[in-house]
Amino acid sequence: MSNAPGAWRAIEVYRVRDGQRSVAEDRAATEAPLEIRLHGRPFVMTMRTPGADPDLAAGFLLAEQVIAERADIDSIAQADDESAIDVALRGQAFTRLDARLAGRRHVAATSACGVCGRQTADALDLPIAPITAAWTMSAAIVAGLPDRLRAQQAVFDRTGGLHAAGLFTADGTLLEIAEDVGRHNAVDKIIGRMLRNGALPLSSHVLCVSGRASFELVQKALVAGIPLLVAVSAPSTMAIDLATRHGLTLAGFTRGDGFNLYAHPQRIA
Amino acid sequence: MSNAPGAWRAIEVYRVRDGQRSVAEDRAATEAPLEIRLHGRPFVMTMRTPGADPDLAAGFLLAEQVIAERADIDSIAQADDESAIDVALRGQAFTRLDARLAGRRHVAATSACGVCGRQTADALDLPIAPITAAWTMSAAIVAGLPDRLRAQQAVFDRTGGLHAAGLFTADGTLLEIAEDVGRHNAVDKIIGRMLRNGALPLSSHVLCVSGRASFELVQKALVAGIPLLVAVSAPSTMAIDLATRHGLTLAGFTRGDGFNLYAHPQRIA
Repeated sequence: MSNAPGAWRAIEVYRVRDGQRSVAEDRAATEAPLEIRLHGRPFVMTMRTPGADPDLAAGFLLAEQVIAERADIDSIAQADDESAIDVALRGQAFTRLDARLAGRRHVAATSACGVCGRQTADALDLPIAPITAAWTMSAAIVAGLPDRLRAQQAVFDRTGGLHAAGLFTADGTLLEIAEDVGRHNAVDKIIGRMLRNGALPLSSHVLCVSGRASFELVQKALVAGIPLLVAVSAPSTMAIDLATRHGLTLAGFTRGDGFNLYAHPQRIA
Repeated sequence: MSNAPGAWRAIEVYRVRDGQRSVAEDRAATEAPLEIRLHGRPFVMTMRTPGADPDLAAGFLLAEQVIAERADIDSIAQADDESAIDVALRGQAFTRLDARLAGRRHVAATSACGVCGRQTADALDLPIAPITAAWTMSAAIVAGLPDRLRAQQAVFDRTGGLHAAGLFTADGTLLEIAEDVGRHNAVDKIIGRMLRNGALPLSSHVLCVSGRASFELVQKALVAGIPLLVAVSAPSTMAIDLATRHGLTLAGFTRGDGFNLYAHPQRIA
């Protein structure tokens, strides 16, 4: 019934509470790319939590109507490093697949998620300039950002169904807010607006998001040059790793009384 | 600063509280496909909340590194029905694009989201058999499903960063649970497991998800033949419309004392 080992990773975080900082042990949900291949050929790449990958591949292929029943699956084999899974089909499913893949030899798929829809994990590696901004922000201001975002969101979101993203200055002033059913869209709307205003890179700004911090959101912040990403909820392992690698300060579980710092804490005073 | 009109739609719901049912006015967040085109050619399709679409397109193209700055955009034009937006590039961005699109003439993109990554909205229309299951479930059992799911999730999720999906029988027994950083993956894992067990269609089962109900989750439930989808949070307009069209009972904002019914309430006793 459970996820396999590897669903989370032990991490070290800075816990900031009421202005005091301490080091704590924590756990982050694993996010890692899985390439789903059909007869050895790349079909799709998804960011998932490892575990039950053969089930994931079967369920995904059903939803995509590549298969319709168990008998359509000949075999499912996973690479030793768990990063790829190869599904072989039989019967009608195989015939349908052949027709479907005929025109897909040179696909360079992309998607609005920023990551899913690409066919291979290689497509995740975008060239990104490291963040070098040296300014700092007070812990009290960081802790208050979600409430400031929510205060504005309450005005607009009367459905309970929208994610919000807000762009703030270093003194905690809200500059832009966007809402969307997809949190990646809310972030794209804000960054796109600033780009159209000629305001990139956003090297003196902070991005606050109403939910979790995934790989894709960290990537979007980095491409826009944002030095500080504040999430209301948990970051994934890949979000932490990407932020660490490129110099982004990443805060999560941000509440009125504090937050955790997962990468580059030097920007929090 | 706000989303344009069209970010939500007035809907009528059945409010079920402590076993009593009443009709209420409510609002649902709009989810609708947007095709982003480059020089008239389909590039990507995303499910988004209408409003600030030119910003969304610009931000998405920046994150994908199709553009790097405002000067790369020649024009952004949106179709009258708001379903598509066409971006024209200039300078280096145009040159890069030409190289990038050269191999993409026959793309049939797909993605683990079930919807994003496809290039046109046409790709959303999968043939789906209508759900005709006639059994009913008591309101008290429906209201208790999220707590049952959470009780199990607490065992596994020690990160706060995982979505959960659970498959239940009509008497509220939990059969399968899956967790993932992506809620579509959690659903694929459960449905894929049942497919591999030869247990499809899941016509006497209920799917409960820890978050919101989007178009993609309703589509996945329908393809597996599940008659009842119970979400802890809000459904989108497209989720409601798809459920209504194909006979799926859709519950949202499900808490211990009740829930709202957005489509096909006849299955709740």
